[in-house]
Amino acid sequence: MIQFYAPDIETTLTLPESDSQHCVKVLRKMPGDIIEVIDGKGNRFTCRLTEAHQKRAKVEIIDKMSLPLFWQNRIAIGIAPTKHLDRMEWLTEKLTEIGINSITPLLCRYSERKEIKSERLEKIAISAMKQSLKAVCPRVDDMTPIKSFIASVKGYDQKFIAHCDDRFERKLLCREYQPGKDVAILIGPEGDFSPEEIEYAVSEGFVPESLGEARLRTETAALVACDTCHILNAAGNF
Amino acid sequence: MIQFYAPDIETTLTLPESDSQHCVKVLRKMPGDIIEVIDGKGNRFTCRLTEAHQKRAKVEIIDKMSLPLFWQNRIAIGIAPTKHLDRMEWLTEKLTEIGINSITPLLCRYSERKEIKSERLEKIAISAMKQSLKAVCPRVDDMTPIKSFIASVKGYDQKFIAHCDDRFERKLLCREYQPGKDVAILIGPEGDFSPEEIEYAVSEGFVPESLGEARLRTETAALVACDTCHILNAAGNF
Repeated sequence: MIQFYAPDIETTLTLPESDSQHCVKVLRKMPGDIIEVIDGKGNRFTCRLTEAHQKRAKVEIIDKMSLPLFWQNRIAIGIAPTKHLDRMEWLTEKLTEIGINSITPLLCRYSERKEIKSERLEKIAISAMKQSLKAVCPRVDDMTPIKSFIASVKGYDQKFIAHCDDRFERKLLCREYQPGKDVAILIGPEGDFSPEEIEYAVSEGFVPESLGEARLRTETAALVACDTCHILNAAGNF
Repeated sequence: MIQFYAPDIETTLTLPESDSQHCVKVLRKMPGDIIEVIDGKGNRFTCRLTEAHQKRAKVEIIDKMSLPLFWQNRIAIGIAPTKHLDRMEWLTEKLTEIGINSITPLLCRYSERKEIKSERLEKIAISAMKQSLKAVCPRVDDMTPIKSFIASVKGYDQKFIAHCDDRFERKLLCREYQPGKDVAILIGPEGDFSPEEIEYAVSEGFVPESLGEARLRTETAALVACDTCHILNAAGNF
């Protein structure tokens, strides 16, 4: 199944340019053809193509279906972006596939990358949402100072900071995470969080955690952390 | 820490060409410098550089340390390779990072890719092993017919086949996997396993399984499957 993406489909009844092109020029859909359109906010629309315009394809809505996230709790990842952008792009795709609510690139003391084009990551998230047949797009933030991220997740049930500083005792995320809880997880840069950053996070209720015995790259750590929550949620009550 | 890789270091006392170049030309190590060398078979050697040759760097071994895998059981993944090779390369890196014993590219009825250069994947596995400070390299097989893979894991404690065919009842891997057990997991191509392949695997003791509610790409499914075993192993007795 192919899903088209049009965030304002309900009001405009029009596909954006890239999806119009894909629908009309690449897939050669004709007026009268039925297509599926998602709005990225949890709705899937069954539509009939009325005008096969290559830049502004018009539709009428036949059916609207609510398609919420398959998990109940919020999962927020704040991560210091990797030096090589392709690793962040890959991560955005994979987090969207396995399921995430928000991805926040963090500005940390030892961040290898101080700027990031969140528009590019957003496009990848949209593409992965379409491909994985979801109808909700994760929020991809602009570069955010770590303190702002910490403030933004103040109300979350569980908060973890993954780091490698042996001076702080760490617990295993897979033993600490409680299924169904809103969770925010901080993933540091290759050079790790600074001791001040760890201390500040701990003072704000973050629990230092380890993801297990493997030494993981930044982007792998973020994926494993998110996956741990999903696996424990799916496995249910032990 | 930088690890050099020399599979025969104990007998040859020599680094292979690429690692010699990295050690001597790039990192400008000098005779007398101490370096760490792994053999990919579970040993890490502390060595002193004796001859800083750019192609055949010579060392003497000062210390030998056994560095076995951090998990006890075997984890074998058989996967129909993706059309785009970069996705298989990425998967090989990530599986090596989080921990895997063997990766077998499968020739299936609906495989999108019928040939694969396992040498390239092996190089990536070696690089990921070095980077993640392991001393054991996963085995990367050549393209293998699915029946041969199934025969090769006959003695494993648990065997699973991940597929999307709704005619077969599937169980959740995260509820079925028993920590500490040898496990073999089949991951199908984008077009799924054929019904005959699923039936054959089931007749050989494979349990049809689902990885959860998310619709995952082939390479993501393989990573999530392997990660599920590690998370349940690490979480221990529930």
